[in-house]
Amino acid sequence: MSRRRISIFGSTGSIGCSTLDVIGHLGGRDAFEIPAITGMGNVALLAEQAKAFGAGFAVTADPGRYNELKDALSGSGIEAGAGPSALIEAGERPADMVMAGIVGIAGLAPTLAAAKTGADIALANKECLVSAGDLFKKAVAAGGGRLLPVDSEHNAIFQVLETDQRHAVERIILTASGGPFRTFTREEMARVTPDRAAAHPNWSMGMKISIDSASLFNKALEMIEAKHLFDMPPAAIEVIVHPQSIIHSMVGYTDGSILAQLGAPDMRTAIGYALSWPRRANLPVKRLDLAALARLDFAAPDFERFPALGLARLAMERGGLQGAVLNGAKEAALEAFIARRIGFLSMAEIVGEVMDEMADLPEASDIEDVYEADREARRRAEIRIAGRQDDFS
Amino acid sequence: MSRRRISIFGSTGSIGCSTLDVIGHLGGRDAFEIPAITGMGNVALLAEQAKAFGAGFAVTADPGRYNELKDALSGSGIEAGAGPSALIEAGERPADMVMAGIVGIAGLAPTLAAAKTGADIALANKECLVSAGDLFKKAVAAGGGRLLPVDSEHNAIFQVLETDQRHAVERIILTASGGPFRTFTREEMARVTPDRAAAHPNWSMGMKISIDSASLFNKALEMIEAKHLFDMPPAAIEVIVHPQSIIHSMVGYTDGSILAQLGAPDMRTAIGYALSWPRRANLPVKRLDLAALARLDFAAPDFERFPALGLARLAMERGGLQGAVLNGAKEAALEAFIARRIGFLSMAEIVGEVMDEMADLPEASDIEDVYEADREARRRAEIRIAGRQDDFS
Repeated sequence: MSRRRISIFGSTGSIGCSTLDVIGHLGGRDAFEIPAITGMGNVALLAEQAKAFGAGFAVTADPGRYNELKDALSGSGIEAGAGPSALIEAGERPADMVMAGIVGIAGLAPTLAAAKTGADIALANKECLVSAGDLFKKAVAAGGGRLLPVDSEHNAIFQVLETDQRHAVERIILTASGGPFRTFTREEMARVTPDRAAAHPNWSMGMKISIDSASLFNKALEMIEAKHLFDMPPAAIEVIVHPQSIIHSMVGYTDGSILAQLGAPDMRTAIGYALSWPRRANLPVKRLDLAALARLDFAAPDFERFPALGLARLAMERGGLQGAVLNGAKEAALEAFIARRIGFLSMAEIVGEVMDEMADLPEASDIEDVYEADREARRRAEIRIAGRQDDFS
Repeated sequence: MSRRRISIFGSTGSIGCSTLDVIGHLGGRDAFEIPAITGMGNVALLAEQAKAFGAGFAVTADPGRYNELKDALSGSGIEAGAGPSALIEAGERPADMVMAGIVGIAGLAPTLAAAKTGADIALANKECLVSAGDLFKKAVAAGGGRLLPVDSEHNAIFQVLETDQRHAVERIILTASGGPFRTFTREEMARVTPDRAAAHPNWSMGMKISIDSASLFNKALEMIEAKHLFDMPPAAIEVIVHPQSIIHSMVGYTDGSILAQLGAPDMRTAIGYALSWPRRANLPVKRLDLAALARLDFAAPDFERFPALGLARLAMERGGLQGAVLNGAKEAALEAFIARRIGFLSMAEIVGEVMDEMADLPEASDIEDVYEADREARRRAEIRIAGRQDDFS
């Protein structure tokens, strides 16, 4: 039996490491071939992974670390590459599936390249859909591959969305942990520090994504992703606060049924589902014990304290490049918050203002349109950040 | 387009009335034809339903009420029948589907007759599977119809059990409200009255089924049903106490995913699902609002205080006619409890003793074997009931 070819983008990150772990459990090198593997700054780990799984082509996103990677791979027969064009080349290497785990707008070009080859895309990168939704979906459709969501929320929806019952799908209900400020007042939120914001209650994640979780900007991006992934009208995409993050998301049907996917907080379930789809795998993840958990809580999200959710709805309704604008402005504001240049609540204010200014951008006709909208949104956000005089005391 | 033929057994009960309501919403007489309809003592309502839906044949289970029914139907052109043989005749009338809503062992013969004709069976009667599991399943298979579970728990499992992923189904998790004595000690349970036991927290039901809910005998029957419906080993059938009864049941897979069906407590969702399967219908049932509910609780079931669950596992492991014995002995004990002849806890003790005595009965080869096991179990339970001297004070 021929081995399945899976390229892994963002291999040294959390999604990438979990993906390699799942691949190990699903047969490892006997069952899988890794045409390409990419990482960022952790070149030693990247080289180690590439050698352990016998990758064909290893790429670091950092152009300055080509020699370091080449040295680490010497004698292995694995080809080395570095920088943006090598990432795109990695996407162009023939593969049956690509695990798109690069974080941020940097993941767009290589994933788009992979989509064009017809590879199935296991999507863990948000920007492909948030910033370039229609463009990206067209590329996937033109290539002929499938789009398999890996985010725990979208993967949950994918598991319980009955594709032959689209007439009966009434609403999609994304669960949100609510983040560390779930019960804070606006006044308290105005004064939180980046360190405080980065402490996520349920999942261990990086600084930026943790803060996006605290502001619910993460959920805002997921709403936009859900619209693109599942072709739902904006009003049919709901968010419910569920602090334990055990129900990963739900689909509501016209007969009153709600179907939900639940599980322990372990990304390997979603990754395994995407990798082995349409056949469920046997994975050594911890089984959910609801009796031990004892309770699950739910609350309506507060659009006043978490304006990111309203901005997502606005972006979905406006369409065009509003997703790219929201994301670009959010990235600039997020970095400014981390640098303690602006307060927590200013992030959404700035994003909303930039979105209003750039409300009329049409659909992207190519990736340059996306980049341009992203850059311009960041630039306009930066002007606002510089003019801000937030009080952190 | 030809109308779909659905016969309704137990039409004047809760399941029957809800079924007619659903049929009304799904097109009524324009879409459905009712070859046969059956009820018990409420002959006036039965005749009214038969006329409203233009049934072909109306049957009361009570042989003494033939004339009353015939009079009530006079001039309508609807044929009248009464008693056990007329019920079987109702099952033999050609239909595309039968809603099997007769409560108790009385539902077995007509449902078995319907299964043999090849009609799809929407199953709301428990005894067909609990008492006559293998015999009944063989009749369905021989007839060529489908078996569609209507109990909210089994319907939930049916909704989220991926039939093409049987290799990956690890466990079935039946939810149990826990009944009104969920937090009672054994000492407190020993002294409860029938009226107290019949007060179910979430569903409005009859006296007997409410008490079965309080003793968890209802859940015990559902465990045995689940084994037959989904061909699962006894150890893979779990019960979790979930007082709100919002998650109707769950299926656990080998990749760590648990799929669940949730909904407001309205039987019309499950009935509608069975009736319109494989296409989901649009029903005017209340949509679930998890934020308004605020929380869902879970606890491990206590096999000490609720020995019915252990008896169910024993019955599944022993196989043969142990389900019929459990059910027959339980019916006798339940009636004795309602008549205040024995205490609440004596029910399970008596059932367990009778099961042990009759542990070696093989599979039923025909319906008479089931009746004989049922009668003998009741007879042996009655001997124990008569000898009991429970203190209710």
